Amino acid sequence: MAAPRSPLAVDLPALPPLAGVRLGATAAGIRYQGRTDLVMAELAAGTTVAGVFTRNRCPGAPVDWCRAILPAGRARALVVNAGNANVFTGRAGRTAVEATAEAAAALVDCAPQEVFLASTGVIGEGLPHARLTAALPALHTRLAPDGWEAAARGIMTTDTFPKAATRTARIGGAEVRITGIAKGSGMIAPDMATMLCFVFTDAKLPAAALQAALKRGVDASFNRTTVDSDTSTSDTVLLFATGEASHEPVPTQGGAMLRDFRRKLDEVLHDLALAVVRDGEGAQKLVRIDVSGAVSTRSAHRIAMAIANSPLVKTAIAGADANWGRIVMAVGKAGEPADRDRLAVAVGGVWMARDGSVVAGYDEAPVVAHMQGREIAIAVDLGLGGGRATAWTCDLTHGYIDINGSYRS
Amino acid sequence: MAAPRSPLAVDLPALPPLAGVRLGATAAGIRYQGRTDLVMAELAAGTTVAGVFTRNRCPGAPVDWCRAILPAGRARALVVNAGNANVFTGRAGRTAVEATAEAAAALVDCAPQEVFLASTGVIGEGLPHARLTAALPALHTRLAPDGWEAAARGIMTTDTFPKAATRTARIGGAEVRITGIAKGSGMIAPDMATMLCFVFTDAKLPAAALQAALKRGVDASFNRTTVDSDTSTSDTVLLFATGEASHEPVPTQGGAMLRDFRRKLDEVLHDLALAVVRDGEGAQKLVRIDVSGAVSTRSAHRIAMAIANSPLVKTAIAGADANWGRIVMAVGKAGEPADRDRLAVAVGGVWMARDGSVVAGYDEAPVVAHMQGREIAIAVDLGLGGGRATAWTCDLTHGYIDINGSYRS
Repeated sequence: MAAPRSPLAVDLPALPPLAGVRLGATAAGIRYQGRTDLVMAELAAGTTVAGVFTRNRCPGAPVDWCRAILPAGRARALVVNAGNANVFTGRAGRTAVEATAEAAAALVDCAPQEVFLASTGVIGEGLPHARLTAALPALHTRLAPDGWEAAARGIMTTDTFPKAATRTARIGGAEVRITGIAKGSGMIAPDMATMLCFVFTDAKLPAAALQAALKRGVDASFNRTTVDSDTSTSDTVLLFATGEASHEPVPTQGGAMLRDFRRKLDEVLHDLALAVVRDGEGAQKLVRIDVSGAVSTRSAHRIAMAIANSPLVKTAIAGADANWGRIVMAVGKAGEPADRDRLAVAVGGVWMARDGSVVAGYDEAPVVAHMQGREIAIAVDLGLGGGRATAWTCDLTHGYIDINGSYRS
Repeated sequence: MAAPRSPLAVDLPALPPLAGVRLGATAAGIRYQGRTDLVMAELAAGTTVAGVFTRNRCPGAPVDWCRAILPAGRARALVVNAGNANVFTGRAGRTAVEATAEAAAALVDCAPQEVFLASTGVIGEGLPHARLTAALPALHTRLAPDGWEAAARGIMTTDTFPKAATRTARIGGAEVRITGIAKGSGMIAPDMATMLCFVFTDAKLPAAALQAALKRGVDASFNRTTVDSDTSTSDTVLLFATGEASHEPVPTQGGAMLRDFRRKLDEVLHDLALAVVRDGEGAQKLVRIDVSGAVSTRSAHRIAMAIANSPLVKTAIAGADANWGRIVMAVGKAGEPADRDRLAVAVGGVWMARDGSVVAGYDEAPVVAHMQGREIAIAVDLGLGGGRATAWTCDLTHGYIDINGSYRS
């Protein structure tokens, strides 16, 4: 059942402690055998929080819970389980969420409404929350500042490698740390791909400034990536700021003082989003799509995502087929302004088509050589305006069918 | 290279002559060896025509040509080639279209603007139109009223079976015939799936009534089907009415007199659209999705298509995985009004989930047995209103990857 490590995997960076965060993982026996599946983080008093969630109209109970408590902007704990997504579980799902939050709150000595939750795994089966609440006390006693790798591993489903990223940023004269972990589109039948991402910083930030920075960062990272166009019911990104670092006070709206913080947060989110794509089901190649010359940024984004989501483009990449015709098709199907006779397409830096037809003397050989590599670059210029956007995806391979089309045992 | 005949294939029906249509096929050597690839139909003087075309913003030169001549509403000939789509071919593509139309017009003794054209096959390569114009004169001498099967086969690319449907309809006291042929999503690397459909009737119909009937029929058939969510640059549906049948005059707007004609036209289009899905790349199962209880028909249609286009739903069907969670996910991602706690999902007539959670005592066995068959029925009830819609798709299998992901030789 376990898939081999993705050929696009990247190693975990060194993950130093981050003031105000102690975390760890344990095996609660939710579904898996012989691995950790329950992660907890305790956050210093005064921690602020921001979050963005799936746009799916049928979200899981933990997403409903987080959405409800987020407006208060305060967090003291995070509890995440793998193996069961607690989605489409009706009233029992809400009961499980409340019981878990209450158990963690008792350990941390906070309100249940300061406990953020996420679940990933099989859907439509009741979450055996008694196993979570039974395992939490012992886990809580073992939380530690160096629990990062354990946490990154404990939230995995069939991810083939753990995912984390870290940066330091300057706020005024002080240095703060930003560290995030994520899990992606590993599938465990009968599940759906779920993206969970938890980012922590020791900066002291008002919740409003935190939320604005997160929203912007997610738009520029996770919202520019796709594996298969499907949208999980559980996608969650949370950003916690423990406030343990010593820096000058940050105004409610953030502002210029957070410029470097925002840049480094963007980098952390970008690294994590790309790690998720690198671990897309069956992924053998990482694909970057740059669109320029569109009538607007929004239009460029939609065209880039149409290319990134096209099964015909993704299978052509899997087959190292220098098939720019499929890219033209995907541009056209986006429904955005496009003039076939101004369109230009490049792969691997080689412009294959310009002004509505193939480039004279076009030599396919270097393009095929590029497409046989692990990282593929597609560029499209619409020739209409100044709109630019970039999207990332992976190829569509037999591995995707194997993972998602096998009858669950 | 040739894929085996789809397990979902249906046999050609008997296709009797249709007054005012003579047709046939020949091997023009455009790309394939040892098979026909050029189809011509000559239509009686006075033939009216209707058409609908791809919404792709980068259409092929033949689509531009047909769109330009359609408003006149008159047709005397149809010329279709397989092997080269004449897409993204710049000025040369327009020249090829004009040369082909002029050659056919000279044979039929009509204006080039009465010659409708379609091309399907490789894109981005110049259409060798000299081969078409060289082959047309001999083909024209052999056009015959019984050339239906030859025509249905001559337009195939890697379709694994020819597609046709026929009905009789009553207009006033008279009987008319409606016969159509189509080709679908057989792929010839490096091509994209293209759907072409040509329907003929001996009814005598004003072009405006014909266009209204066709638009309505395509909305209820081809626009309710999907193989892989990609949109070809060449999709074309044309409806020709030769006017050879004897029936009372039909008013410009059609009206009640065309009730039976519209019903039978819808049936022909429905048969052909389903034949295309049955021959979807790698298809092993035909999937029908019925959505009810949505807030509107439009909303139901969007939800049905979101399910039909979901790679996770389609791979689950391939694997006979009774994974209703993925159906819930697809409902949610459609972005239409949905209340998770009112949602119900059935497969094979067995309601698996209701009111936001799994049905008590749900037994998976009959659902799995259903899913191991060739025709899969999914039903979703939103519980919100009276909106209903149906969509058809096929499963997503290794065959799709094989066909689309292999490097072209």
